[in-house]
Amino acid sequence: MRIGVDIMGGDFAPNSTVKGAILALKELSKDVQLVLIGDQAKIYEILDAEKVDRNSFEVVHAEEVIEMGEHPAKAFSAKPNSSIAKGFGMLYKKKIDGFASAGNTGAMLVGTMYTVKSIPGVIRPCISTELPQFNNKKTILLDVGINPDCRPDVLYQYGAIGSVYSREVYGIDKPKVALLNIGSENKKGSLVVKGAFDLMKDNKDFNFIGNIEGNQLFGDCPADVVVCDGFTGNIVLKQAEGMYDLLRKQGIQNEFLEGFNFENVGGTPILGVNSTVMIGHGVSNDSTIKAMIFKTKSVIEAHVSEKIIELYQ
Amino acid sequence: MRIGVDIMGGDFAPNSTVKGAILALKELSKDVQLVLIGDQAKIYEILDAEKVDRNSFEVVHAEEVIEMGEHPAKAFSAKPNSSIAKGFGMLYKKKIDGFASAGNTGAMLVGTMYTVKSIPGVIRPCISTELPQFNNKKTILLDVGINPDCRPDVLYQYGAIGSVYSREVYGIDKPKVALLNIGSENKKGSLVVKGAFDLMKDNKDFNFIGNIEGNQLFGDCPADVVVCDGFTGNIVLKQAEGMYDLLRKQGIQNEFLEGFNFENVGGTPILGVNSTVMIGHGVSNDSTIKAMIFKTKSVIEAHVSEKIIELYQ
Repeated sequence: MRIGVDIMGGDFAPNSTVKGAILALKELSKDVQLVLIGDQAKIYEILDAEKVDRNSFEVVHAEEVIEMGEHPAKAFSAKPNSSIAKGFGMLYKKKIDGFASAGNTGAMLVGTMYTVKSIPGVIRPCISTELPQFNNKKTILLDVGINPDCRPDVLYQYGAIGSVYSREVYGIDKPKVALLNIGSENKKGSLVVKGAFDLMKDNKDFNFIGNIEGNQLFGDCPADVVVCDGFTGNIVLKQAEGMYDLLRKQGIQNEFLEGFNFENVGGTPILGVNSTVMIGHGVSNDSTIKAMIFKTKSVIEAHVSEKIIELYQ
Repeated sequence: MRIGVDIMGGDFAPNSTVKGAILALKELSKDVQLVLIGDQAKIYEILDAEKVDRNSFEVVHAEEVIEMGEHPAKAFSAKPNSSIAKGFGMLYKKKIDGFASAGNTGAMLVGTMYTVKSIPGVIRPCISTELPQFNNKKTILLDVGINPDCRPDVLYQYGAIGSVYSREVYGIDKPKVALLNIGSENKKGSLVVKGAFDLMKDNKDFNFIGNIEGNQLFGDCPADVVVCDGFTGNIVLKQAEGMYDLLRKQGIQNEFLEGFNFENVGGTPILGVNSTVMIGHGVSNDSTIKAMIFKTKSVIEAHVSEKIIELYQ
């Protein structure tokens, strides 16, 4: 397995990214080759300073960088020698099995759509987040930011795509899918969500358990997969992040609450595209980058893309 | 001032409601008359048990009750002698200045629209919630549940209505109004929110400060008034309630977090209607009911309805 890592992406790159790769290398089996994509001189400088053999990694030189604030589509086209553009070039040609970056998220999305593209049949790719639960239960929420406006059939597909992810990555049999809504009753919600409910009830593609409300998301969520549009999902995610920060500032901390520390999650894959693309958090530090690399590995190993392709064949 | 209280509304009524009225009475000035609307025999029974003079209150007998689970519109029409229907009858005839209930919220909305009605010019009435902040700062979020689907012009009106509330109830001069969005940049968001942004920027009706994100809602919110559709607002509110419950279960508690205990807020007025209608929380206890009565008094005193009427004259 070959995993491409954007060394120039993230607020603390390239230090955090090279050091994260070094941390990952120590725990990865030998059949995983990390491909560091970025400024070769800087990469070697950090490797040398850390006393790590330059040959531990494959290094692909990229002389340009897409900065965090740049216009995604313009930058992606204008900088073919950027680490992000080079990474997608390799992913498209299958020279790597997955590509991970904590850099410009918009450019990562553009790169995905320009190169590996959506899976035919998938209306809109999406990204997910884990919702912290007690007892190591795994629940994901999707979409959390790509598509602020979703039609009912898009929400329906999120149910199917999320089920694949939950089953293949977490090993959950017949994942329970719920619709995030403002009441538990069938007739509640916005027009779009009511439409999605009608599509989901009695469906045969996934195990729909009905509506859940905002107070059921964390701790003991009845669902394994929670579906919403990217506007709602992004607000849920940011609100949880904000709450975590507020609690930390007040000195309140425990193991459960650490689940809300989204900086430690590593990243989230773009679901519904023809390869494994991992989006990391901009503020990623060394250990976050390591977690991003491991998450990329687990999504590649679980064949998430291939299983979603099977859904729509 | 005369405040009508629905004695039959709420999970613990009539005990909680009568006892809450007794608690309020002890602190209210003599020019405030509480009108208890509900089963007279039960009201007297509780007053007698509590050794409170029956003449401390005006009691209006209502022999029917709209239960929590009943269909709001059907129940309101089918039960003209219910406490909610009688309350709205009195409010419509101006025999009371405000009406408060912790009962069937849907029936309270129906009653409002059937009797005192929306203010001409207000497209959609809404309800708000206080977002807990440090240093006793007051920030409200609206809508939190009446209108899951909002057009941009409805969101614009929430900005104006919320400004009136913030100014008249909290005494904030030129309240800062923000749009809840998924990015701080102008071009972010759903189609509706982008449309609302375009209406709000450079407007002369209120002090618009731009977009805020989900992680800015609590603690140190840059806005006094945060605007969103009722779907998003309800999810924000329920998520915060759920988080508060989770923290409590883990034994985590402090003064700031108590701001998230929505059971203690008392209630929220329906904004944009021709009188003062206060919606209480179903699980209200004695002290919640007392808080609901005081909140009703403050909204009447602040002339919120009259000030919103002035906006659209």
